[in-house]
Amino acid sequence: MPRQLHLNAFLMNTGHHEASWRLPESDPYAHVDLDHHVRLARTAERGTFDSLFLADGPQLWSSVAQRPAGALEPLTLLTALATATEHIGLIATASTSYNSPYNLARKFASLDIVSKGRAGWNIVTTAGAGAARNFGLDAEPAHAERYACAAEFLDVARLLWDSWEDDTVVADKAAGVWGDDARIHPPRHRGTYFRVEGALNVPRTPQGYPLLVQAGSSEDGKRFAARYAEAVFTAQQTLADARSFYADLKARTARAGRDPDHIKVLPGIVPVIGSTEAEARRLERVLEEHIVHEHGVGRLEELLRLAPGTLDLDGPLPDGLPSEDEIEGAKSRYTLIVELARRERLTVRQLVARLGGGRGHLTFTGTPEQVADTIGRWFAEGAADGFNIMPPVLPSGLETFVDEVVPILRARGLFRTEYGPRRTLRERYGLPRPANQHVTARTPGAAPAAALVRHP
Amino acid sequence: MPRQLHLNAFLMNTGHHEASWRLPESDPYAHVDLDHHVRLARTAERGTFDSLFLADGPQLWSSVAQRPAGALEPLTLLTALATATEHIGLIATASTSYNSPYNLARKFASLDIVSKGRAGWNIVTTAGAGAARNFGLDAEPAHAERYACAAEFLDVARLLWDSWEDDTVVADKAAGVWGDDARIHPPRHRGTYFRVEGALNVPRTPQGYPLLVQAGSSEDGKRFAARYAEAVFTAQQTLADARSFYADLKARTARAGRDPDHIKVLPGIVPVIGSTEAEARRLERVLEEHIVHEHGVGRLEELLRLAPGTLDLDGPLPDGLPSEDEIEGAKSRYTLIVELARRERLTVRQLVARLGGGRGHLTFTGTPEQVADTIGRWFAEGAADGFNIMPPVLPSGLETFVDEVVPILRARGLFRTEYGPRRTLRERYGLPRPANQHVTARTPGAAPAAALVRHP
Repeated sequence: MPRQLHLNAFLMNTGHHEASWRLPESDPYAHVDLDHHVRLARTAERGTFDSLFLADGPQLWSSVAQRPAGALEPLTLLTALATATEHIGLIATASTSYNSPYNLARKFASLDIVSKGRAGWNIVTTAGAGAARNFGLDAEPAHAERYACAAEFLDVARLLWDSWEDDTVVADKAAGVWGDDARIHPPRHRGTYFRVEGALNVPRTPQGYPLLVQAGSSEDGKRFAARYAEAVFTAQQTLADARSFYADLKARTARAGRDPDHIKVLPGIVPVIGSTEAEARRLERVLEEHIVHEHGVGRLEELLRLAPGTLDLDGPLPDGLPSEDEIEGAKSRYTLIVELARRERLTVRQLVARLGGGRGHLTFTGTPEQVADTIGRWFAEGAADGFNIMPPVLPSGLETFVDEVVPILRARGLFRTEYGPRRTLRERYGLPRPANQHVTARTPGAAPAAALVRHP
Repeated sequence: MPRQLHLNAFLMNTGHHEASWRLPESDPYAHVDLDHHVRLARTAERGTFDSLFLADGPQLWSSVAQRPAGALEPLTLLTALATATEHIGLIATASTSYNSPYNLARKFASLDIVSKGRAGWNIVTTAGAGAARNFGLDAEPAHAERYACAAEFLDVARLLWDSWEDDTVVADKAAGVWGDDARIHPPRHRGTYFRVEGALNVPRTPQGYPLLVQAGSSEDGKRFAARYAEAVFTAQQTLADARSFYADLKARTARAGRDPDHIKVLPGIVPVIGSTEAEARRLERVLEEHIVHEHGVGRLEELLRLAPGTLDLDGPLPDGLPSEDEIEGAKSRYTLIVELARRERLTVRQLVARLGGGRGHLTFTGTPEQVADTIGRWFAEGAADGFNIMPPVLPSGLETFVDEVVPILRARGLFRTEYGPRRTLRERYGLPRPANQHVTARTPGAAPAAALVRHP
């Protein structure tokens, strides 16, 4: 069987295009409607997607006038979706800067048990002063410090997830002995950012711990991914850039002593699909016409650290913008946007339209065949192990992708036709179940154990 | 219609009796089995209970040898149960000492939306050094300080839950205006324990905010309850004590400027039920015979701050125990246990058996009629607005209660026979939806609004 694609459905309210909520078909209250999300989850499962994904930041963006704001907290929503689905993975974003390791490790362990091994964690460090000010800080910690804290968070979280060996539970009713205390390993961690003494109060889970996902493409981000991540979401505008990112990340992962096959690279793509090219262009145009340009320009000025009113809608980006080193927020996204504008000689108006469509992710407009061609080409040419599918309008964009594009990918032998037996999310991505580090320390070379705790 | 009872099902693994897991019928892995909890939730819903409740503390108790340890995190489990039930309330315990207001307010708001208005929060301050050491502290904060922090936490959380007015969403597609920024109210809170600047990123929920429940019966706890709680769980061993607690709490609530009907008092009861008295006694004896006394004595010595090996299994509690003032942990539970032993002249062995059955809550052994009589008497004589039902063995104890006791309470006109139209948890408990404090400040005397945001 040829190498297989992995597909992740990135869910977002009425869609990834910022004007999607204004279309007649869209429900402007979709973000707080569980049924809307159940419909999306079941559509993705019908399309045998590997996983669902929800982005997150612990703050309300500045204005609710522009588009649907607020959302259900991702772990809550994915837990509800776990009971409405059977096979699909459930990847929640959560911040290492604004959570305690003990609380967050418990929540992911609980979701992994409730979903029977389908939990994933998109690890973010959370840029921006807005979030920081919701947690007692005046400003966000510096970029490098956020990543140092994230690395320590991961080390503690993995100690917590390994604090129960798989065969801790004895359940000897006659003797009155439920568990073996010798197989409990409290972290006793005292680090720079965290002190965590005791064992987790959740047994080891079907996957051992959630699939670890990462999405930052800065230098710090790539270093972190090479060490911890099993899947990486990334924004890439060209095949050449994507290939170079892919090769770099695989090489870094090998240098970190890990199997480069054990990190899956998934660029984002916003597929604007029509049954003909003209129809696809028409949908793209309708969406663009619904963009409120003054909102987009305001956000762009903020991102580029320009005073409000500086940018000319029909001119190019000005010279003399800050370099990535001076940015403490989302570094790699900043560079991508500036380079996109320069490379394609976009006016501010055109750049706002592009960002409105996918926030820096690749937007591809065309027929189902053309979308499948692009996906297949990036996959074959060393730019991707799969894709993060970001429909511009939901639910229709996901339904079109599942009904029109997935069958083509299947016919080409690139994508599964059914889920087959129940597997964990990590198995679905072709990754091994992690060994418990305490067991490995005791018996080096032992094969990673399957879950021995019965998870009914 | 006569005044109606409120019943809450307190779920705990294989039951509230610590030896319940050793019975042949019990599944020692029940704690990590979603299906087990779904069965319990649906049984309680068949019995038209008001709500389900899960206790919690962010730590693993010292030994896993004694009984099932670890659990699914309550908000995760109740979210999964929300999708498996339709009417019943979902009350999760969460700590004000070891959570951030922004994160916790989001999670409860999300559960309230997902469950269509059925979320409740049992507010705890979390006693014990074990939990403190999982969150970077060496020891728990002092009792009074924990409650001062809890009060500030509640004030911030209510500001967050009110940070969206009910009619913030405009959804004007033609004009491209989704929400009204003037109806967003960032807390801008700078207090002793917390600083929270921005508005919540979840719209106002069906209930406005979750039903607020409290369970501490110390002086600090009662003061807190009078100010914030809408329902109170309490451990009471005698009708006289329960009446005095009830009267005191209602009076304190009135003095705090609130309607005393707006705080519901629910003592815990562990009903050990048999179709005859002899059969009930037999179940009680079987459970007692499965207690491992050395474990119970060890825990009692820890609670009473005695050196291990001090207590004589067949002797009384020694004299010279510390007073409640010297206890920084669970103050009122400490006093209740010491007084119980003195009043009933229990040996240590007998006290261990009583605590093994209900951890200080009232254990009542008898026929369904006798259980209903006791509930009815406490309810009629000013000791309770309802009960926190704590079956000694699960699922069988809950099934027996629903099939045998509930019909008697219904026949006596004390308890609902059906749920009727869908209502929120707060409505079920006969409480009004809280007004948004920003709207009240603008238009004093306005009636509390119904939820205007469409919650499908």
